Amino acid sequence: MIVASCPIPLTRYPTVQLAHGGGGSLTRKLIEEMFLAVLDNPLLRTLQDGVVLPETSNQQLAMTTDSYVVHPLFFPGGDIGKMAVCGTVNDLAMCGAEPQYLTLGLILEEGLPIDDLWKVICSVGATAKACGVQIVAGDTKVVDKGHGDGVYINTTGVGAVRHLMDPAVAMKPGDVILLCGDVGRHGVAILAEREGLEFQTTIESDCAPLNGLVGALLDAGITPRSMRDLTRGGLATALVELASDCEVELRASAIPVEAEVGSACELLGLDPLYVANEGRMIAVVAKAQAEAALEVMKKANPDAGMIGVVKEAARGSVTLLSDFGTARRLDLLSGEQLPRIC
Amino acid sequence: MIVASCPIPLTRYPTVQLAHGGGGSLTRKLIEEMFLAVLDNPLLRTLQDGVVLPETSNQQLAMTTDSYVVHPLFFPGGDIGKMAVCGTVNDLAMCGAEPQYLTLGLILEEGLPIDDLWKVICSVGATAKACGVQIVAGDTKVVDKGHGDGVYINTTGVGAVRHLMDPAVAMKPGDVILLCGDVGRHGVAILAEREGLEFQTTIESDCAPLNGLVGALLDAGITPRSMRDLTRGGLATALVELASDCEVELRASAIPVEAEVGSACELLGLDPLYVANEGRMIAVVAKAQAEAALEVMKKANPDAGMIGVVKEAARGSVTLLSDFGTARRLDLLSGEQLPRIC
Repeated sequence: MIVASCPIPLTRYPTVQLAHGGGGSLTRKLIEEMFLAVLDNPLLRTLQDGVVLPETSNQQLAMTTDSYVVHPLFFPGGDIGKMAVCGTVNDLAMCGAEPQYLTLGLILEEGLPIDDLWKVICSVGATAKACGVQIVAGDTKVVDKGHGDGVYINTTGVGAVRHLMDPAVAMKPGDVILLCGDVGRHGVAILAEREGLEFQTTIESDCAPLNGLVGALLDAGITPRSMRDLTRGGLATALVELASDCEVELRASAIPVEAEVGSACELLGLDPLYVANEGRMIAVVAKAQAEAALEVMKKANPDAGMIGVVKEAARGSVTLLSDFGTARRLDLLSGEQLPRIC
Repeated sequence: MIVASCPIPLTRYPTVQLAHGGGGSLTRKLIEEMFLAVLDNPLLRTLQDGVVLPETSNQQLAMTTDSYVVHPLFFPGGDIGKMAVCGTVNDLAMCGAEPQYLTLGLILEEGLPIDDLWKVICSVGATAKACGVQIVAGDTKVVDKGHGDGVYINTTGVGAVRHLMDPAVAMKPGDVILLCGDVGRHGVAILAEREGLEFQTTIESDCAPLNGLVGALLDAGITPRSMRDLTRGGLATALVELASDCEVELRASAIPVEAEVGSACELLGLDPLYVANEGRMIAVVAKAQAEAALEVMKKANPDAGMIGVVKEAARGSVTLLSDFGTARRLDLLSGEQLPRIC
């Protein structure tokens, strides 16, 4: 996150006013002096409500949308701006697409410190740059105090499909499940920050873009049957949703959870398998590609590993096997362990 | 707005719970029983975070985003769902594009009556159908009570460009300005509903899609220099933004304002030229095409008319000429007359 000083004089408008969302000269000031200063590119600079994208020469496109309402706005390892870019970039990557263009919809609450907005925008800009995507259009609304929570962000993205997957066949018997790193950090980091909990070391969110990793897998000739990032509902929910007509067997000991995260979860009554991550994914690949795929993943993160296999079954199920031979069936939670996590 | 009865039993969950946004089984229930029931199409039905769009065979795409925070959610002539679809459809149409695919990002406030959500979704569905667009991906977040205002909606859309315009040349000396109908109704309708004001007749918002009108103009061979819908900031702001290096002369008497809207504005201290509309646009066309374009517009709405001309000038300006010979220069407002109008 590169934070130069905010270009809007904070003495005159230290906080967001309703007029900043009115579409008049104050809105224009915000857009030109703050947003364009950080996010500038030729498409955004047209400042039209809509933008014409460069010709896509017969590429097939993927599209995705996500709103971000995480509380607090800033947390160890990230902030709402970084999350909003990573989340949508990751959803496109999970479609086998190379993320290209993002839109940015801001709902600001009257009274938000302008300096906080500046930090969020800087983070959006730095993350977009790191992911190789452009913010091409935006929209800013301001709601009266007490009808928001600082900043809500919607990012919607399009990208060019590199690897087409059939959503109806997410896995086949014999496939293996690969996980790209440890799980549970994002949710615990948010909760700790929100509730003022302190652990021996600061637990940092895993918030990060996954398009680089997916690109590396595709470059290596891997053709995943399906990919899923492990956000709301965590690893367990992602697998339950994918395993609609197969039986997945997971080895509990193969799923890395940092010791500090594990203790925090125990203390807080959370199951790390259901805790949201923001930079973790699973890939379902044919057994023949497992080794090559794992090599690519381990290069990015040594914690990556093969966590399970897909078996034939009449009805979908996900079973977690412990080293002691016990088996536990994983299912969808009715809600979520923590609200406002993303 | 077609409102069948809500498919989710209201006795069990009469209002939105935080768990509806948790990504678990309650979220799934909402999506499958409510959203898919109304918005169903093969792309949305995949229920993936991202969706692969059908091949676009070398079409150039336009993209736009908008968040909607209008208060109240329901008003004469429309509601937040209709607005969210029309607004984004209209922004694409203003790019000379045929709107095709929309995403729908919902930020729901805990405690929102499920039945209100159902009405909004029905309205989104009916309006999308009327506009010929598909909702292809969505996202639902729930924020705790006191951090939202019922429903906030983001719609982001893509569409195929039919007529490419140069944003740097919005108008040329000699061009004429055409307006597609009366102005000021949306803002006044919202304010009246919000403040409980009563006029002799109910003033209805002009909220409506404009892609049909733009399609008809293009079908007739009209090649507008620029088009702009008259939302936040109204007719005056749109013209001031377009006239960055030309002088626009408007005839006040040519700009239709309904008598009741005019009186309401006088009473409330509003200028109808700055009041937001949600189904009104201007087209800047070369003089040679003016008559043909006006004919198309008048077929859609007899109130359409030619309201001004573009003159040569060193510096951009918009001047309103009255029938009595007085001239008034229009400029950007610093904020907006009414917050939360869209």
